[in-house]
Amino acid sequence: MADFIIKLKPAEPQGRKILETERARSDLNVNQLAHHLLHRDNFLDRQERVLAIIEKNPLFSKTTNLNLSRPERYHVGLARAKEVRRLARREGWSAEDYTMANYLLDEVSPYSLSDSMFTVSLQQQCDEQQRTQWLGKAENWEITGCYAQTELGHGSNVRQIECQARWNPETKDFTIHSPTLTASKWWIGSLGRTADHAVVVAQLLIPSSTGKMQSYGPHQFIVQIRHLQTRKPLNGVAIGDIGPKYGYASMDNGYILFDHFRVPRTSLLAKYSKVDKNGKYTRSQSSATVYGSMTYARAYLIGQAALVLARAVTVAVRYTLIRRQFSDRDSASTNTAEEAVLNYSTVQIRVLPLLATTYALHYTAEMVKDAFQNVRAQIDKDNDFSKLAEMHAMSSGLKSLCTSLAANGIETCRRALGGHGFGGRSGLIPLNANYLNKPTVEGDNWMITQQTASYLIKRMQTCIETPTMTPVDKVDITFLQFLTTSSRRRSLDLIAYGPDDLVAAFQYRASYLAHKAYQLRIMQKFSWNDMLIELHHLSNAHCEFLLVQSFHDALQQPFPPLDAATHRTMQQLFMLFALFTLQDNSSDFIAMEILKPSQLDTLKTEIRQLMQTIRIHAARLVDAWSIPDYLLDSALGRYDGEVYPDLFKSAHERNPLNAEVFNSDYRSEEIIWGEGEEHARRRILALVQGTPSLENTEIGSLKANL
Amino acid sequence: MADFIIKLKPAEPQGRKILETERARSDLNVNQLAHHLLHRDNFLDRQERVLAIIEKNPLFSKTTNLNLSRPERYHVGLARAKEVRRLARREGWSAEDYTMANYLLDEVSPYSLSDSMFTVSLQQQCDEQQRTQWLGKAENWEITGCYAQTELGHGSNVRQIECQARWNPETKDFTIHSPTLTASKWWIGSLGRTADHAVVVAQLLIPSSTGKMQSYGPHQFIVQIRHLQTRKPLNGVAIGDIGPKYGYASMDNGYILFDHFRVPRTSLLAKYSKVDKNGKYTRSQSSATVYGSMTYARAYLIGQAALVLARAVTVAVRYTLIRRQFSDRDSASTNTAEEAVLNYSTVQIRVLPLLATTYALHYTAEMVKDAFQNVRAQIDKDNDFSKLAEMHAMSSGLKSLCTSLAANGIETCRRALGGHGFGGRSGLIPLNANYLNKPTVEGDNWMITQQTASYLIKRMQTCIETPTMTPVDKVDITFLQFLTTSSRRRSLDLIAYGPDDLVAAFQYRASYLAHKAYQLRIMQKFSWNDMLIELHHLSNAHCEFLLVQSFHDALQQPFPPLDAATHRTMQQLFMLFALFTLQDNSSDFIAMEILKPSQLDTLKTEIRQLMQTIRIHAARLVDAWSIPDYLLDSALGRYDGEVYPDLFKSAHERNPLNAEVFNSDYRSEEIIWGEGEEHARRRILALVQGTPSLENTEIGSLKANL
Repeated sequence: MADFIIKLKPAEPQGRKILETERARSDLNVNQLAHHLLHRDNFLDRQERVLAIIEKNPLFSKTTNLNLSRPERYHVGLARAKEVRRLARREGWSAEDYTMANYLLDEVSPYSLSDSMFTVSLQQQCDEQQRTQWLGKAENWEITGCYAQTELGHGSNVRQIECQARWNPETKDFTIHSPTLTASKWWIGSLGRTADHAVVVAQLLIPSSTGKMQSYGPHQFIVQIRHLQTRKPLNGVAIGDIGPKYGYASMDNGYILFDHFRVPRTSLLAKYSKVDKNGKYTRSQSSATVYGSMTYARAYLIGQAALVLARAVTVAVRYTLIRRQFSDRDSASTNTAEEAVLNYSTVQIRVLPLLATTYALHYTAEMVKDAFQNVRAQIDKDNDFSKLAEMHAMSSGLKSLCTSLAANGIETCRRALGGHGFGGRSGLIPLNANYLNKPTVEGDNWMITQQTASYLIKRMQTCIETPTMTPVDKVDITFLQFLTTSSRRRSLDLIAYGPDDLVAAFQYRASYLAHKAYQLRIMQKFSWNDMLIELHHLSNAHCEFLLVQSFHDALQQPFPPLDAATHRTMQQLFMLFALFTLQDNSSDFIAMEILKPSQLDTLKTEIRQLMQTIRIHAARLVDAWSIPDYLLDSALGRYDGEVYPDLFKSAHERNPLNAEVFNSDYRSEEIIWGEGEEHARRRILALVQGTPSLENTEIGSLKANL
Repeated sequence: MADFIIKLKPAEPQGRKILETERARSDLNVNQLAHHLLHRDNFLDRQERVLAIIEKNPLFSKTTNLNLSRPERYHVGLARAKEVRRLARREGWSAEDYTMANYLLDEVSPYSLSDSMFTVSLQQQCDEQQRTQWLGKAENWEITGCYAQTELGHGSNVRQIECQARWNPETKDFTIHSPTLTASKWWIGSLGRTADHAVVVAQLLIPSSTGKMQSYGPHQFIVQIRHLQTRKPLNGVAIGDIGPKYGYASMDNGYILFDHFRVPRTSLLAKYSKVDKNGKYTRSQSSATVYGSMTYARAYLIGQAALVLARAVTVAVRYTLIRRQFSDRDSASTNTAEEAVLNYSTVQIRVLPLLATTYALHYTAEMVKDAFQNVRAQIDKDNDFSKLAEMHAMSSGLKSLCTSLAANGIETCRRALGGHGFGGRSGLIPLNANYLNKPTVEGDNWMITQQTASYLIKRMQTCIETPTMTPVDKVDITFLQFLTTSSRRRSLDLIAYGPDDLVAAFQYRASYLAHKAYQLRIMQKFSWNDMLIELHHLSNAHCEFLLVQSFHDALQQPFPPLDAATHRTMQQLFMLFALFTLQDNSSDFIAMEILKPSQLDTLKTEIRQLMQTIRIHAARLVDAWSIPDYLLDSALGRYDGEVYPDLFKSAHERNPLNAEVFNSDYRSEEIIWGEGEEHARRRILALVQGTPSLENTEIGSLKANL
């Protein structure tokens, strides 16, 4: 850089000094809190160890990501994904280490569905012979797979997918076929260019003795789809990448169509469902195991929501502590220094409740993980599936609420960053782009809440119809308590109340709404569609109660323990989360007479005062999340606070657009200075017209490599 | 495509037939409503005429946009921007035609700040001599400019920008200088690679007779920054593009640093502020003219919000009419056809209130444009600035509310699309990416509401302290009415009420909150910072009243007129907008005793029933917005409903990622099949390391081309 630029520093105060000062103001024990949050599975140690290896590899530098074309994002994504696997072998990484590496790299790996849904399906659905044939190859990365369930025309409603697998009695094999365009598998991660195998979900059709085609519903089939050496599709399938998306630039989500594609009888994953050589179908085991993986995926998403939101909040807190703009309007002097924008209540109200939410999400995820382990233990030990229904219902509603909180929270944080929140060095662009499918995947957020609401109505009905029953699950206990409490409302005394009262208020609201839904649906026989909005609200209300309760309970006897100062600040965070959520739903609480309208102003004052206290600890609170700079990838949120030098350096030194000089005269078709008009014309037109896909080579012409 | 694919059609029912049927169900007069909405400045005719020219030019095809690298987006953006200018010359386009072409192209043109803020500043701030020297060249596109105000360290608080323009008494010229890194101009549209001139906003510093530097605040200077022929920066400036952003991929937002850069005395734009040859400063005219352009920009943003949201809603309505998923849960038969997702109340509640909002935004924008024209006429005719303060206050709060509604609305629509909402062919990716700076630019949405609230408190104070005053503006009339109405609350009778009652309810709420803010600030002397959240809420409440009122008033005597059937549906849309907004703020209305808690269920039922009625007209209501397919650029929202064939074709035929075959073996570093490991290694590393910016050539070494 030119001399005069090298010498330039930002105006005082410097970001580094600001963050040092902010950290010094607080007595929160960062290391203790970090360990308290992230001790499970040695997360912090693992992060440090794996990060040290990842950070020093030039292939894993993120600096050019946002400048690359979409195809280049895949090429680089595949190269990185391969390097991560080679590293895993070289370093002897565990599965958790491998997952950590991909987490830090923060790209959706082209191998990711092979490692997850493809391999998990084989683990769960293969019979002994199939395990021997397939599982080792999948786990050892000899084959690359994907999980082909979703179709162009069907996502949520899996039962009505169109892809067929017909039993052929003469040849004793199956024909997999896509009868329509909407039967095309679509969105299939790792399929577009990477995978050579697939677990395909298709409607199992077997002709009866009269010849009439009988459907047995969706089943899973393991099939090879590409030639292992040439990577061309096998005969009878058409495969490709579906094109650019909102995010997931490095991932080749793909489509596949089957044209009377013959596969052996042993393709049907046969642990529970079998078709014998005579075409006879048998099925053991309930769909409970399906519930199991769905529930695990949703539990995972709740924990991820905490870390994702924590990332956005880390950037927002650090930057709004550093950024100064305007002086306090009431200051007497006109020469007053400008205020840190986190001093403004309108910035605090957007950032600090979200900071509190990261902790609520975290403790809820821990609660769900523990519950899930207990449920699994009961199933494995005693074949006792009784707790699975509650687990499924709770994880559905929590998935919906928690991913919405995180997704909405990222954008709220981004807007709180002001102008620089629109820039690439905010660190929030890929975070947002890759996260925004979470409100949709693994059950659309406005659809799966029906499962939670349905369960709650059933439990309420049972409690009402058999009031002397022994409670089967926690929801029963809550509802029985609600039904037997006197009709005098449990109104909230906002002058003298404690955390327990807030939990009770949310519990009451959840029970009240469940009771109301029961009345509408069971007593008044309202149509389900007419109630959908109320059912969604019921699920959210119940899950807000779970969030408040989990946060509250975790602070009763924190483990690992917290010192008094840290515990005190965590309790203030809990109060902020509970009161903010209460305020956000105040019409409910007023309608239920838990809150009086005249208390709304008191609530506002409480929240404002809590925020002023928490603001003092904000820098340390985000430090506790221990998100490394490499993962944040943010000039605004870097640990050392060197915001402006980072912003400037990134633009001045590393921007490929600054590598050329341009011709701005509109009368000339020349774009890059000196390239000539004809050259520019051809070059630009080629960019605009693009490259045709491979002609006919995506329709395989080789036999399966069996 | 292979034969078997060519023959494939989506499963029944076909999208085309669905939309035809939907359109046939409604009696809304689309052409009449379209003309009613968009007759101003012959918008519809102009759109049709300009579209015909744009659509047939292969350079303007959007199909590869999302696949290109960031530098390629600029190259193509510049090429298109040049072609649009050449077309404007060839076709003899007016300024409105030229604007329409850029609007349809839907890219932020690298020339756009030259056409807007640069040229407008020259028009407004040049004295006669400067007009002669500069204006023609700007308007004739002989020079390309930008507007360099925002800095790394200052956006909202213009008063404290750091860039300096010091008067040199000996040489009788100015030195423009960036004293710190944070003084770097930043975010400057058209600057990064395109512009050769700039209007630079800098602190005017003139040494007094004692030598002490006196500041006269920010002023505008017209300067050349690049050599016209070579496009290299002049000596003493460093210029570059700031790098990738959330959106605006085709625009070169830039930075510029000045190193003791000398410019002539006549650089200071001198219509109102002058420095004579002796360094004496004079100023005529108030800052009212500055208010004028700021207000115009904000008025423009309100109109834009309507069209932007209309685009997202058009996609959402058409697609959710076509997409089927799940049967009605209460259906007796298991073979029932799947439901259109817009039949679900949980989809309706997300999409239809936003459809109503597009109309509310539109009518409010019309109201603001009319008001702005009246205010300008008063200023031009009578030098009467009395209405400017109210205009400024209203447009600030409306800018905040309306851009938030539109920005949030885009994401709500996207999520309502389910899985395909994450895809590139939703049409919402560039719409969202380019729109999401609107909550921040032209006054951050959480900051400018202070201007509205401040104004409302002043007017309330005036009304209270001089109750017999003659009202100065519409706000006074409202407040005087509030103050003189008996203390009995105007509660809303939800059994028998009309549109007027709803307007009155919103008016009451706005007045109530203004009165409350007056009490806190003026009577109880609350600090401004402690009130910020309430002030923001006050501004939003007042502007929600303006939206409801504008929508209501426009339907009293619609002009151009609407037939009875169309008018009836529009009135239902009004009711939906008003009731939905009421419900969203129900705790306010309950606290003010306009609504009783027991009425909340009635409200829900009303809204649900309104949505069922409006749903019948949804297809025609979005057709009335007349957004051409070329601008929608959406498989999901195309007029003819051919969703699935479009999705498939785009993936199968036009995706550059499908032009190569890849090596998925992690042990091999080869990426493209056949390229070899060494080649891949070098190629990938080059992509990851990027291209260094021009060394030292961005620090100009040539004298200004004066």
